[in-house]
Amino acid sequence: MPDAEGHPAPAEMTLRTLLAALADPLRYEVVRSLAQEADGAARTCASFGFPVSKSTLSHHFRVLREAGLIRQVDRGNSRAAALRRDEIEARFPGLVGLVRDNPGGMADTP
Amino acid sequence: MPDAEGHPAPAEMTLRTLLAALADPLRYEVVRSLAQEADGAARTCASFGFPVSKSTLSHHFRVLREAGLIRQVDRGNSRAAALRRDEIEARFPGLVGLVRDNPGGMADTP
Repeated sequence: MPDAEGHPAPAEMTLRTLLAALADPLRYEVVRSLAQEADGAARTCASFGFPVSKSTLSHHFRVLREAGLIRQVDRGNSRAAALRRDEIEARFPGLVGLVRDNPGGMADTP
Repeated sequence: MPDAEGHPAPAEMTLRTLLAALADPLRYEVVRSLAQEADGAARTCASFGFPVSKSTLSHHFRVLREAGLIRQVDRGNSRAAALRRDEIEARFPGLVGLVRDNPGGMADTP
């Protein structure tokens, strides 16, 4: 079962749930941005600069976390998100590379 | 631009649109079933045996067609759907194999 923060174990991830999480343009852009960073890089939600409310942003990050795409880590008074690159690659080889290499159709954010 | 029947050219396909089409369990199952058949195999919509109305089924096949996942071909008084396997593979290598190899969470249909 998922841990206390809602992160599923790799064996609990399903491809369709990952694809559903990636179907949204904002969420796709989060994963694509993280995929383009160095392995293990973590970014705060705010750093993406999306023009949406904090609650909308929280919702999207929760969907990504519960699908297994990102791991959220506490950083004092903010939270940062890191791509679960190696775990996703082990379960669904090639998926992260496909997202990294294909624009999602949302304008690039600062 | 898409042809008269709504099939996009390979260059018009976007990964995110394909993922959004695959996010639905019924549509995922259609693509997974076709991916497991011989290359070029075409099946009628009815042959999948989904317990949904004809209009719902038409909607789902339209989404798959407009995303670029399937090609619909007329067969006299019915239509059959074939996976655009080679074209998808050329644009998004590995995607069809991932879907083929991972159950979508919908019970197998007859």
